[in-house]
Formats: sequence, structure tokens, C-alpha cells
Amino acid sequence: MQPYLIAPSILSADFARLGEDVNEVLAAGADVVHFDVMDNHYVPNLTIGPMVCQALRNYGITAPIDVHLMVEPVDSLVPQFAKAGASIITFHPEASKHIDRTLQLIKDHGCQAGLVFNPATPLSYLDYVLDKVDVVLLMSVNPGFGGQKFIPATLDKLAAVRQLIDHSGLPIRLEIDGGVTVANIGEIAAAGADMFVAGSAIFNSPDYAATIAQMRQQLAAVAG
Amino acid sequence: MQPYLIAPSILSADFARLGEDVNEVLAAGADVVHFDVMDNHYVPNLTIGPMVCQALRNYGITAPIDVHLMVEPVDSLVPQFAKAGASIITFHPEASKHIDRTLQLIKDHGCQAGLVFNPATPLSYLDYVLDKVDVVLLMSVNPGFGGQKFIPATLDKLAAVRQLIDHSGLPIRLEIDGGVTVANIGEIAAAGADMFVAGSAIFNSPDYAATIAQMRQQLAAVAG
Amino acid sequence: MQPYLIAPSILSADFARLGEDVNEVLAAGADVVHFDVMDNHYVPNLTIGPMVCQALRNYGITAPIDVHLMVEPVDSLVPQFAKAGASIITFHPEASKHIDRTLQLIKDHGCQAGLVFNPATPLSYLDYVLDKVDVVLLMSVNPGFGGQKFIPATLDKLAAVRQLIDHSGLPIRLEIDGGVTVANIGEIAAAGADMFVAGSAIFNSPDYAATIAQMRQQLAAVAG
Amino acid sequence: MQPYLIAPSILSADFARLGEDVNEVLAAGADVVHFDVMDNHYVPNLTIGPMVCQALRNYGITAPIDVHLMVEPVDSLVPQFAKAGASIITFHPEASKHIDRTLQLIKDHGCQAGLVFNPATPLSYLDYVLDKVDVVLLMSVNPGFGGQKFIPATLDKLAAVRQLIDHSGLPIRLEIDGGVTVANIGEIAAAGADMFVAGSAIFNSPDYAATIAQMRQQLAAVAG
Amino acid sequence: MQPYLIAPSILSADFARLGEDVNEVLAAGADVVHFDVMDNHYVPNLTIGPMVCQALRNYGITAPIDVHLMVEPVDSLVPQFAKAGASIITFHPEASKHIDRTLQLIKDHGCQAGLVFNPATPLSYLDYVLDKVDVVLLMSVNPGFGGQKFIPATLDKLAAVRQLIDHSGLPIRLEIDGGVTVANIGEIAAAGADMFVAGSAIFNSPDYAATIAQMRQQLAAVAG
Amino acid sequence: MQPYLIAPSILSADFARLGEDVNEVLAAGADVVHFDVMDNHYVPNLTIGPMVCQALRNYGITAPIDVHLMVEPVDSLVPQFAKAGASIITFHPEASKHIDRTLQLIKDHGCQAGLVFNPATPLSYLDYVLDKVDVVLLMSVNPGFGGQKFIPATLDKLAAVRQLIDHSGLPIRLEIDGGVTVANIGEIAAAGADMFVAGSAIFNSPDYAATIAQMRQQLAAVAG
Repeated sequence: MQPYLIAPSILSADFARLGEDVNEVLAAGADVVHFDVMDNHYVPNLTIGPMVCQALRNYGITAPIDVHLMVEPVDSLVPQFAKAGASIITFHPEASKHIDRTLQLIKDHGCQAGLVFNPATPLSYLDYVLDKVDVVLLMSVNPGFGGQKFIPATLDKLAAVRQLIDHSGLPIRLEIDGGVTVANIGEIAAAGADMFVAGSAIFNSPDYAATIAQMRQQLAAVAG
Repeated sequence: MQPYLIAPSILSADFARLGEDVNEVLAAGADVVHFDVMDNHYVPNLTIGPMVCQALRNYGITAPIDVHLMVEPVDSLVPQFAKAGASIITFHPEASKHIDRTLQLIKDHGCQAGLVFNPATPLSYLDYVLDKVDVVLLMSVNPGFGGQKFIPATLDKLAAVRQLIDHSGLPIRLEIDGGVTVANIGEIAAAGADMFVAGSAIFNSPDYAATIAQMRQQLAAVAG
Repeated sequence: MQPYLIAPSILSADFARLGEDVNEVLAAGADVVHFDVMDNHYVPNLTIGPMVCQALRNYGITAPIDVHLMVEPVDSLVPQFAKAGASIITFHPEASKHIDRTLQLIKDHGCQAGLVFNPATPLSYLDYVLDKVDVVLLMSVNPGFGGQKFIPATLDKLAAVRQLIDHSGLPIRLEIDGGVTVANIGEIAAAGADMFVAGSAIFNSPDYAATIAQMRQQLAAVAG
Repeated sequence: MQPYLIAPSILSADFARLGEDVNEVLAAGADVVHFDVMDNHYVPNLTIGPMVCQALRNYGITAPIDVHLMVEPVDSLVPQFAKAGASIITFHPEASKHIDRTLQLIKDHGCQAGLVFNPATPLSYLDYVLDKVDVVLLMSVNPGFGGQKFIPATLDKLAAVRQLIDHSGLPIRLEIDGGVTVANIGEIAAAGADMFVAGSAIFNSPDYAATIAQMRQQLAAVAG
Repeated sequence: MQPYLIAPSILSADFARLGEDVNEVLAAGADVVHFDVMDNHYVPNLTIGPMVCQALRNYGITAPIDVHLMVEPVDSLVPQFAKAGASIITFHPEASKHIDRTLQLIKDHGCQAGLVFNPATPLSYLDYVLDKVDVVLLMSVNPGFGGQKFIPATLDKLAAVRQLIDHSGLPIRLEIDGGVTVANIGEIAAAGADMFVAGSAIFNSPDYAATIAQMRQQLAAVAG
Repeated sequence: MQPYLIAPSILSADFARLGEDVNEVLAAGADVVHFDVMDNHYVPNLTIGPMVCQALRNYGITAPIDVHLMVEPVDSLVPQFAKAGASIITFHPEASKHIDRTLQLIKDHGCQAGLVFNPATPLSYLDYVLDKVDVVLLMSVNPGFGGQKFIPATLDKLAAVRQLIDHSGLPIRLEIDGGVTVANIGEIAAAGADMFVAGSAIFNSPDYAATIAQMRQQLAAVAG
């Protein structure tokens, strides 16, 4: 696996010129498009659905699209997003009655599958499905609510999942989402994350490439 | 009131270059941007939310934005869309426990308010709130499901609502959504509609301006 | 039937000394205790349940208690309130899947039964159960939201229900709830109501007896 | 259309020897198998699903199977029952958000479609879909609750629907379910019904053929 | 306790002649009737309810009936199944808000009680109720979805529960459901299970008795 | 912190003279008013809401009010209770989709925050929020159901939480609710609790002060 992946969150992009803005951030060095789906039920907000994902593919975006489903229930959207071009689909275990089956459903549709953990969600949901996930995504803020900072307790949680993954020997990505900045990305990587969602830190910066380069510098320092 | 309004549905626009595409359709003669919001609960699809509406305003779109909420429950999204630049907000009466209150909530937030009727929904929901709606929107297809044609029984329903509105003497728009084309817009106007949502008929046509001009010709024939 | 009934809403009473306050308003001439039950699901507020009703009975209150269920679902609370001393139980037709059955359930538990209509709710729910209701309650404000005034369109609705009741020849009470004051009670009675819920108009007045007497004067003028 | 259809309700049959019991009642002169599906959500009981329907077809039952869905939501069961051999599928309008679409879905799967009305449900749900129903089923008891008698107000409702159907000129069946017996079937037919569900009246009688013959005698007297 | 129990799942039996088929499988050596209840809410299928259980008892079936509730919510069905002749009632912890209370409710109605674990459900639900369960049922496929194979990770989970049970010293059955065949029953027993649900492996075999005998041979080899 | 707090549950007080009864129990030596909120959804009962809390404050009660929310969802009631005078607000983790966020919401409104554990609820919900709770409340009966005794397994659970708290070094209260009496309060304190809810044991005793004094004696014996 590529050591570190940077995944700008589309929520901070310009929805009036989305194709162009996503292309810019990819050209600036981003690896993955992080695609935040909210349904106004699992979280108190409604964002974007499969049609917008499809439009990015039609526009020519070929980078991996990492669809984070903040929705409940989950299953009916899986085939829609797979068809619309999703590469990875992650969901919250509390939002699916049949977690093992939803993971399988995602894989049957040709995507990589992952579980997302809210800040307070215990890791016991991983006990019997670690061999079926391609990604574990830890939320370091509460999804769907604005203006939050990185929750420090997530560092311990990252370390715990890193240990589980390393112990398993499986090629599982450990993704982090919420309050990631140039200032803290090094510490987060040191705790075990290897895939980094960043929204405003990148899209609200004056120079995407410079910001991503600074993030990679911090990451290199950790790896080094 | 302006006699006839044409409201292209954003669902058929290009979400990768939405600002540009919306500008083009407005430049081609459209009057209103019809904005379809689906939450994967009231209808089996998820589309776009307040952030996308806000992005259109930030892009410089000044035309009225007509937000059709295919969501349940309704109330929490009203202030979000009002803040994001909505001009009109309509909802389905079955989706709100307190219809009179939701209409009032929309008005309190500075928007025009309307009720939307599914093909089978009876008109009795209008009995005691006709004085509180700015728009009545009749669905001539089932919302949230693709590939449907204009349901003919809607013509009688249009006539019935037209009679209610005329009898009331109130300046209420009678909007129609579903399967509207150049071929049937005249018949629909003759039945009483004065605001026309059209999606693929416009956005999938080779020349937006030509299509809209043809629609206006049909409408002029009716008015004439 | 007694021509007019005045039913102070317990929501405006003092919950820290409820028995005493209810006794005072009854001594001041009120006929019925109106008991507003909200469950934070059918309406966005939570008030009081069966235990508080039972406490009033234990305190010695013998006046009729008129329980207005702003809850969904309805059926499980019916036996609890009947056992706790309710005299009348009313509910919203949208909140019960089996309206005829819920009416029967209330009667089987020895209470009078009624349907409540929100401001926008059509009267068609009465079409096939008029012979099973003891009370029709029209809301003249939206239940569960504060600070509202009497909605004028309710006067026409009162007249329509009055006509239905008179035509049926059945001894059905026509109750009104929301924004009733000394100033408008006459007009409301003239439109057809014969049972009047009033909350702050009575409990926030300096002299309960004087206020109720003024209401009766207005009613006498109508009846005269 | 055949003038009168008798449809024994499978709920009163012997589920341990269902194929045999259904064959017996058909041999005794019944026209249609009425198949009651309850999901413990729309009604407080759970009965039988598609597998049991399929088993009857596998057993060799070729009579029409009339599936009455007392479930919410409706749509996901439609293809399952169509595949399992259903001939007619009816549902309650309150249980589907998109009534017109559900009717169409049933027809697209090759079955006849119908709407079911609870005792208190107003007929306005028929206003704009009469041309899409093959059956209107009126409940003369509350579905899902045991030990009820025929509700007399249903006779007026039958007459109202009969008038709608005759006025439309469409070949729509008017079905009745609840408390039908030899003693009242004549009166019910006189009010307008032409399809009769009967459960215990047939299955609890000592001689199915004799009971059905008596029902047909009563019906002949009406028709005569 | 009897060392090993074989519990054929009624879902694979012939619902048109259920009494006879169940008698045959019991005569062929089965110990328990496994009764799968699905409500189309907790799982996407609807099967059979209390009436079918009662019919088996009326038919003369005296073997234990092991009711597996794949329903949500749970509590209202407990008294219905107890009255209909259930011996054991198990439910999914995610489907009950008050797990300890539901276990107690089952026991108060004279049945044995158990918890069922989906493939991904962590065992922490057992932490404070192990002393209240008579059965722990592990799903080795996802309930309610067809055509699945035994999930291998269940073997580790069986071993973990076996250890908990043995450590407790309590007479708790460890039941397994999903993809059990003659080929793998030995391995499953070795991992700790002592009660085996098998559906198509038995009912789709040409000779029930031969298949059950083969299973017992495999089990004897493990026990030996 | 004060070593032991006694918190009489208002559910056993006299709702007809609540201010007076609460004052009496405080004068008799109680430390905290325990305020049980049920919404007929999370538990099968409906009790009292914010208005009753506000009435106690208006009556002059200044003791801490400990609001136990047995409701789902949770968030909308938090600001209402904070405004109505709550000091502590606790909720069940299963009832909130975003536990970390709800804890933060309570604190942002100026109250202390806590999690409540049903008898069967595992402690893993504490894994990543222990630093954010002021109170851990263990239920020793199932909330919302009457007539239950203290569940003995709670003693082990108390010991486990006591160890977590002591290990953290944080000033977290360990509260117990259900079946607490003079007879068992000592044993419960010995297991680790330091805040004791008692309803009927106090309010149904002839002399509040004597009962509370006896409880304190038992507690002193433990502390000693």
C-alpha cells in the first residue's frame, strides 16, 4: 500500500463548479476524493447523493472516490453509489441491522468496504469482521455538526486500531476524519492513521498544492 | 403575476459544472430554478441539500430558487434552505404532522410556501390552508422514481385546483412537475397550470433556448 | 347537554401546586379540566402523563378530566389514562393507524371518545365515524408550539362541523382549543363551538372567577 | 365479470394441513383464496408471508389468490408475492407514501391491484386513482384485532363506492372483509359488494359446501 | 443436558402440509422444531407467526418448539408465542431496548429465553445477563437473506462463547444457525456448539432419517 | 466531593402538591431531586417534562435537579431542560446516535452530563468518553416498568465502574437507580456507588427524615 493517502472532503469544495475544483485539488497532489453523504436522518444535515458522484465520473475524474455514508438505513444506497462510480463505501455500524451483510453487499458490487466509528462508538463492532473490512474510519469530530475541533481521545483510539490491524496482518487502511490540519497531521499519523480526510484545511487554504505539500512534509517526518 | 413561468429541474443539469449550466438555462430564457431535494426516506433516492443551494447563490445566481422538499420530516430543513437562498419552499402534506405550522415556518423565514400533491393525494389537504399557500404543486409522475410519463389524470386535477384558486381570488401559482414536454405543455396550460417544471425535456435538448422558445410558443397559443 | 362548557387547560396551571390551582379554577366556575398530553414525538414538547392525572383524582378532584392526547401512537396510553381517572380521551386521527378501533378502545375503557383536528386537517376523517365520537375538538392553533393566536379560518371549520353534528342529531360536543379569550369567545360560540379550552386567558388573569364570569357573559349574549 | 365471488380467508384454515384445507374449501365452491398478510407493524399481529403463498402454488392450488397486505411499508413485498403466485394484491393507502406508484408496481408484476379502506378511512384516496384499481376492498371490522362484528356504517360506505364504480363504468370488484355470515351476506350484497371474504363463517362451519351454498342462495335472492 | 440437539428449520419444510412434514422430520430423529419468525422490518422477509405455531400444537406436535424472533420490536410477540405453544424464545439484542426485561418477560410466560447474535454482533451483550439466558444462538449466516454459506469466523466466536458458558457453570445451550451440513457439523461441534439448526441440509435431502443419522455420526466422532 | 448523595425520585412524590412534597423531602435531608422523564417511546410510560421542572424552580426549590432522560431521541430536550433549571442531565447511550455530541450539548448548556446503563447494557459505551461524563448512572431495575426488585448482578457492574473511575482519577459520580432501600443501601455503597436514587423507599415511608437518617447510618457504616 502507498504509505499515506490524503483525501480532501468534497464538503468544502465549491458545489457550483465541482468538477473543476476537484480536478484542481487532485492536481495539487491529493490522492482520493472523500465524498460525504448525509441524509438528514442519521445526521442532522442533507448533502449530496449518487447523481453528484456520477457527475464527477462523467466529468472525467478517475481518482478513487471514497464515499462516507452518514445515512440510515444503508443498504439501498450501496448499489446506487457503486453504479455511480464509488471506489470505497464506508458506513456506521449503528446504522445497519446486518453489518456483515452490508460489508458483503459493498464488496459484491465491486467496491472496497469499511466501517466508520463515531467518537464514542466502541471498537467491539470490529471483533468479528476485521477480515472483511478494507478501511477503518475513525471520526475525530461528531459527523454532521459544524465547527468542531479534533477530539484528542481519538489518538488513543487510533493506536488501538493500529494494533488490531498490525496484529491481523491484513492490508486495512486506517482513515481519520475531523479537524485534521497541517499542525496536527503528524501527531495523528504517529498515532497510527495512514489516510487523512481534510476539508477546510485544504479547500479554504489559498494554495491547495502548498497545503498538501506541507501535510506530506509532516507525514514524511513521522515516517522518517 | 407573470402569466407563465418555466422552471428547469436541476436534477437534469450537470452537477460537475452546476453554476455554469444553471446560468446557461437562465440565459436561454428560464424563469426559475427548480431544486429537487430527496432524502432517501420520503422517496427512495438522495439528491442535494442546502450547501448546493448556497453554492448557486455564491456563484451569482439571482433567479428565484424553487425548493421542492421530497423529505420527511420537513421542519428542520426549512431554516437551512431559507438561509441558503431559497425563494420558494414546497413540501408534501403527508410528510409534516403540522402542515399549517410548517407553512407558517416557511413564511416566517422569508420564503414563499407551497404544498405538493402526489398523483394519488386528494385535494382535501387544501380545505383549510388555501389562504396560506403561494404555490400549489401537482406531481404528474411519482416523485423519486425514474422513467415515468405524464399521468393523464393530472389534467382533471389541475382543472379542479384551478377552480379553487380562481374562486379564492388569491394570487396562487399552480405548478406542475413530471413529464412536461414541448408536446404536452399546451394541453397542461389549458388545464390550468401556470408554472412548469421540466427536466430532461430542456437539459437533454441540444439547444436550451430553442426548447424554451418552443414551450413559450405553445403557451402563447393557449393564452391567445 | 349543558349549553356551554369552559375547560381551563392545565398547561397554564402551576405544576408545583397543581391540586390547589385546579381546585381554585373549578371553584371559580370552570366545568372541566383540560389535560394536555405531549410526548415529544407527535409534537415537539413533553408535558405530563397518567401519574399526574391519577394524582388529581387522589387529591379529590371530581370534575370531568378531558385528556387531549398529542401523542403517537395512541393505543397504549388509553388504558393507562382510563385507569388514572380520565373522563374524556381525544386523539389526532393522523396519529392512529386504526381510528375506529381506537375510538372503540376508549369507550371499552369507560371514557368518552373524541377526534382532534389540527388547523389544516380535513374533516373527511369524520365521514364514517361520526356516530362513534362524543367530542369533536378543533385546534385553532398548532398544538405543541407556543405563542400563537387564534387562526381565523377555524370559524368556517366550526360552522362546517356544527352543521354535521346538527344534521346527525347526535349529542356530540364541539370543542375548541387555542387562543380563546374573553374577547373572541362570543364569536367562536356563534360559529358553533360549545366547549371552550382556555389556558393563559384564565390562569394568567388576576381573578379566575371574574374571567370565567366574563366568558359566560359573552356566551350568554350569543345564546340569547 | 362473474356476478359474485366468495373468498374464504385463509386465516381461519388449518395451517398444519393448509394445502388440503384450501383444496377442500375450493371443492366446496369457493372462488378465490383470500390471503391475509400481517407484519406486526401496520397491525398488531404477524401471520404469513410469501413462502406460504408459494407452498400453495407448489401444492397445486390454481384458484386466484387474493393477497391482502396489512403491512407498512408495502413496496418491497410486492415482487415477492407476485413471484410466489399472487393473483391480486391489495394494500392500505395510509401504508404507502406513493400510492399511485405502488398500484403501478403491482400491475408491472402481472397482478391485479387494489386499495383497502379501514372502517374510518375516507374514500378521498380514490379520487385520482379509480382508473388504476381492479379491486376496492372495504374493511367492515378493524384489521388485525380479533372478535369483532360487522360494522353497520360499512353499508353506507359500500353504497358510496358502488356508485363511484358504476359511474366510472370500469370493471372494478367491490370486496368486503369482516364479519360476513350467511345471515348478513344478502344485505351486504344489496348495498353493493360483489366479492365476499368470510373466515370463521366458512371454516368453522361443519360443512363448507353447505355454508357456501347458503351464501349463494342469499346472493341469488339479492340478484334476483 | 442431552449432549447434542438437532433442530430442523421449519423454513425449509413444506408449508402446504406442515404438520405432516414436521412429524416426518421428528420421526426421522430430530429433537427440536426450529421456528423462524421474520417481520419484514428486522429482516427483509416475512415468514410465519403465532397462528402457525398454534396449528402445529393443535396437530399434535409435542416436541420442543424453538422460536427465533427476527423481529423488531420484540415484546408484544412474546405472550402471543408463549400462548401458541413455544418452548424456547430467542431474540436479537439490537432489537429490544430493554434486553434484561425481555428475557424476564419470556421466562414469566413459562418459556426458556435466549439471545441471538448476528455474525458481526459483539459478545458484550452477554456481559451482564449470562445468568438469565437458557440459550445463546450464534448466526453463522446473515438472517433473512438467502443463499449464504457458513461464515468461518463463527468458529472462533463459538469457542469464545463456549468458554464463557463453561466458566459460568450454567446449563446454557450453545446453538448455531446457518449453513450447517453433514460436512461441517463435526467441526462446528468441536468449536463448542451443542444445538444445530439445519434447514435445506435436512429438508432438501432425499431421506431425512439418513441425513440426521449422518449428522449424529459426525457428532459422535467429536464427542468420542 | 461530598461522600454520599441521596436523590429521592420524584416519581413517588405527590404530583398534586409537588412543590410542598419536594420541599419536605429536602428538609428531611435529601441532597438532590431525581427527576424521571419518560416519553412513551424509549420506555412504555409517559411522565413529566420541562414545564414541571420549571415549576419546581419557580416554587423556590434550589437543590440540584438530576434529570434522567428515558427518551429517544435525546437532543431536542436538552436545551429545554437546561432552561427549565436542570442541574444534571443523563441519557441512555442507545437513545442517541451521537453520544459524544449529546454529552457536549449538555455541557454547552451549563449542566453536568452523564450516561445511564440499562441492566444489560455493556460498559463499552464508556471506552472513549469517560473524560466527558460527570455521572455514570447504573439502572438496577429495567426503567419504565413497575414493581421490580434490585437486580443483584448490578453489584458486579458497580464494582467494574468504580474501578474505571478510580483508575481515571476523575471526579465522576457513580449513581444507582432501582430497588434501593435501607436494607440494601450499605451493600450497594460497598460495591462502589456514591449517589443513591430511592423512590418508594422514601416517599412511601411514614417519616422521610427517619428513613433518610437510616440510609445515612448504613452509608456511614460502609464509609467507616
